[in-house]
Formats: sequence, structure tokens, C-alpha cells
Amino acid sequence: MTQLLPALEAVQKILEPLFPGLMGVRLLTIESERVIAELFVRPDLCTAGGILHGGAYMAFADTLGAIGTVINMPQGKRTTTTDSSTKFIGGARVNTTVTGESLALHRGRTTMVWQTTIRSAEGKLCAVVTQTQLILDA
Amino acid sequence: MTQLLPALEAVQKILEPLFPGLMGVRLLTIESERVIAELFVRPDLCTAGGILHGGAYMAFADTLGAIGTVINMPQGKRTTTTDSSTKFIGGARVNTTVTGESLALHRGRTTMVWQTTIRSAEGKLCAVVTQTQLILDA
Amino acid sequence: MTQLLPALEAVQKILEPLFPGLMGVRLLTIESERVIAELFVRPDLCTAGGILHGGAYMAFADTLGAIGTVINMPQGKRTTTTDSSTKFIGGARVNTTVTGESLALHRGRTTMVWQTTIRSAEGKLCAVVTQTQLILDA
Amino acid sequence: MTQLLPALEAVQKILEPLFPGLMGVRLLTIESERVIAELFVRPDLCTAGGILHGGAYMAFADTLGAIGTVINMPQGKRTTTTDSSTKFIGGARVNTTVTGESLALHRGRTTMVWQTTIRSAEGKLCAVVTQTQLILDA
Repeated sequence: MTQLLPALEAVQKILEPLFPGLMGVRLLTIESERVIAELFVRPDLCTAGGILHGGAYMAFADTLGAIGTVINMPQGKRTTTTDSSTKFIGGARVNTTVTGESLALHRGRTTMVWQTTIRSAEGKLCAVVTQTQLILDA
Repeated sequence: MTQLLPALEAVQKILEPLFPGLMGVRLLTIESERVIAELFVRPDLCTAGGILHGGAYMAFADTLGAIGTVINMPQGKRTTTTDSSTKFIGGARVNTTVTGESLALHRGRTTMVWQTTIRSAEGKLCAVVTQTQLILDA
Repeated sequence: MTQLLPALEAVQKILEPLFPGLMGVRLLTIESERVIAELFVRPDLCTAGGILHGGAYMAFADTLGAIGTVINMPQGKRTTTTDSSTKFIGGARVNTTVTGESLALHRGRTTMVWQTTIRSAEGKLCAVVTQTQLILDA
Repeated sequence: MTQLLPALEAVQKILEPLFPGLMGVRLLTIESERVIAELFVRPDLCTAGGILHGGAYMAFADTLGAIGTVINMPQGKRTTTTDSSTKFIGGARVNTTVTGESLALHRGRTTMVWQTTIRSAEGKLCAVVTQTQLILDA
């Protein structure tokens, strides 16, 4: 099967008016089994103490896993996240940039499982998010 | 022990410049074992298709569980979320309002566990988020 | 729709040669939205230190949530757990009995979500397990 | 720091009278950042249909992640699992052998995070279990 991957810019443009756009998610790589993006830790993405809000980690990851699923689905299908589990490991400081890399653990017909690893600018592990995507008829 | 609960307005004010403020989280109730808030589903909180982004559910819930933990901690302590698990059950449409109610499942000295149930304006169950908060020395 | 619930003894008999039988899971109640069972904390269900093994909590709960799903499925369907998330809150001592109560959070056509609360003999909260069941054609 | 790893046989012997012994968990490798074991899918570890019970996956993984944590803890500490999240991906047939490999995602002073990947005899991915271990004073 030849898979036609969407242009990065086209996907980025779709995100702009949506929640990932509000947060400033910037896509870097879209491949069949891998989606990479970065996020600048603006003050209004933080929790008290000047570190990235836990919810921002989860929203960032959810975005990448969903993109990974969409580009792997056949025509005429849609997807919804049924479950997402996050382990928070380290904080990311305000005014730094974190990078998220989402890898396909499973790409089936009924479900896909994507795992996103978020790291600080220095490469320190911040969070690991594992999500299940259900594939449904559109 | 007499617990002095913070005024709702004081906590709301702390949230304003942070991620919950960006999202528009509005606190409604803060009690010892329960925190309630609402969120208007703005277009820029959505994913494609005009439904609330999964990440917004998770960020909304994480905010409530963290507030619940903070108001139950002794002086001289701080908290961090170590884990958050979300079951997505139903979508919330753009331009509606969802309500999140976070209840304490466990309030211990070392950890607390809070579970947030998010419902649509019609009372339909949208998501259940369960999070573990670690209590640390400040 | 009239739902015919299976006799408790019939389900118990199915469990006997399987993993729940090995563990000694004893069903107490099977209702449409609730399944209750008990488990005696034998030494060979424990981890070091004479407390119930974390895996035993999870296997106990998985059993109850699956039974709850099966009794709610239409004919011609089967189910598989896609996700299970557990918060461990307190230990259960060897030679005591724990009780698990599994409640339906969602009973849809495509997925069901069941949450099992496990308590010690004194009613202390030990663990909360939330699982997603996918409904498939048999 | 020189870390003295325990002899495989010594750990296996500790497991024998406990839940992992009941299940038949056989340790293969214990390294600082990796624990590997295998499990023969006996009929009494299965669910209906002759596939490994979801609870057995979780108990198998919980065992490996706990061993990994214990061998990395300083003297005078103990550990407890606070959270475990499992994605079920594929079934393992009765009378086959599955292998679990647990890797350290994080080894901190307060928490450790271990992720166990369980594969069938043919190398097919069956489940991914991610758990958080809290480190406490003994």
C-alpha cells in the first residue's frame, strides 16, 4: 500500500483555529509511525510555580496521537480517543520549549495505540502519555 | 481540625493568568471533598468536527483535582500530579457548557486521589478522569 | 427490553476452571449495572509483606467488569478489555476478605466503561480500577 | 555507585510462595534498567475462549515493575505501586508462552516509572503496562 502522507503545513493549518492552535503546538514531523511536534512553554500554559500545566502535556500528546491515527486510517473512517493515561515525570520551565514524539505501538483496524514522550529542551523526560484510539465508520 | 477553605474568588484569580485561565475554567464550588467548575466550549477549545478537544477535558479535570489537593494539604507542603487516567465517553458540542465535578477518593498524607466527572449541559457523561497527587515537602 | 440476568451459580461455574477460579473469586451479586464479589486474601495471592498483590486487585476487578459487560451485550457480540487503569490506595492483609463492587459508568453499543472499587473487611478503600470494554461482533 | 544485583534464583525463590509463584512467573533477566520473565499460558490463567486473562497480563507486569524498583532502591526504603495503566492489544493463546520485558522509564528518589511490554511466542505485541512506584521509608 502506498500511503500518501499529508503535507505538514496542511495539517498545521487545520490545527490553527482549534485547541492545539490556541496552545501553539508546532508540528515538526509526520511519518506513518511517528509524529513529532514542539510547544513553547508560554506563561499562560503553566500552572502555579512557572511550570507547564499537566493538562497542557496531556492536550499536546492527545493532539499528536490523534494525528498519527488519522493518517493511518482508511478512507471513510473516523477516530475518537477512548482512553489516555499519563505518567508525569518531570517539570518543564516557563519560556523553554518541550518536544513531543508520538510513536505507534499498535495500528489495527479497530483500535490504534500511540505513545507520546515529552522531553524538555535538555532532553529530560517530562511525561509519557499512552492513548487508545477507536476506529469507527465516518 | 478546622479547615479554612479559600474564597472561590481568590482561587479563580490565581487561575486567570495560567492555563485554566486561558481555557476559561470558571470555579463554582470549592469544598473539602469536592470541587466543581464549568467550561464554555469555545471553538478554540475544540478538535475537528466542533467537539471539545480531549486534551481540554484532561486539562479541565487536572485543574480541579489539583485545587482539591491543595486545599487539603497541610502548611509547608506542595503537590504534583504523578498520574492521570481518562476514559472518554461522549462528545461535548461547541458553544455549549460542560460541568466538571471532582471528588476526593482518597486524602492521605503521602498521596491523594481525585476523580473528576465531566458532563454536558444535558447531564450526559462525557469523561471520567482519575488522578493521583503526590504530597511533597515544599 | 427485558434483560434476563444469568443465575449467579451459572456464572460462578464458568469461572471455576479459569483465572478467577484459581484466585478464588466468589460472586455475590449480578445486576444490570452492578457486579459484586469477594476474594479471600490467601497467602499465595500476596506480595512480600503479607498484603494482597497489586496484580490480584487488577485481576479481580477485570473479572467483574467483564462480567458486567457480558450481561449487558446483545446476542452475537463479544467483548475485550482495551484499557484498564488502577489507583492503589491501601493494602489488604493476608487472611482477610476484600470485596469488589463494579459499577457501570457507561453502557454504549461500541464501548462500556466499568469501575470497580475494592474495599477491605473494615470498609477501607484499597483500589479503584476503571476499565474500557470494546464490543465486537462475535 | 556499584550496584549489586540480586541473583536471579534468589528472587525467583522469594516469588514462589507468592502470587507470581501461583501464576508460574519465571524470571529470565534482572538488570538495573530491565527485568525479563516468561509465563506459560496455563488453562487456569485464561479467560473464556482460551486466551490469557487480562488480569494475568497485569499481575505479570506488576511483578516485573516491582522487582525493577526494588533492585534500584537504596537501603532502608520500600515501594508500593500507586498506579498501573494497561493497554490490551492482542490475545495470547492457551498453552503458549508469553514474555514480558519491563524497562525503567524513570528512576527517581521519590518515584520510579516502569513499562512492561508483553509479547506472544511469535513476538506479537499483547499488552503494554505502565506503572508508577512510590518510594517510601521502610
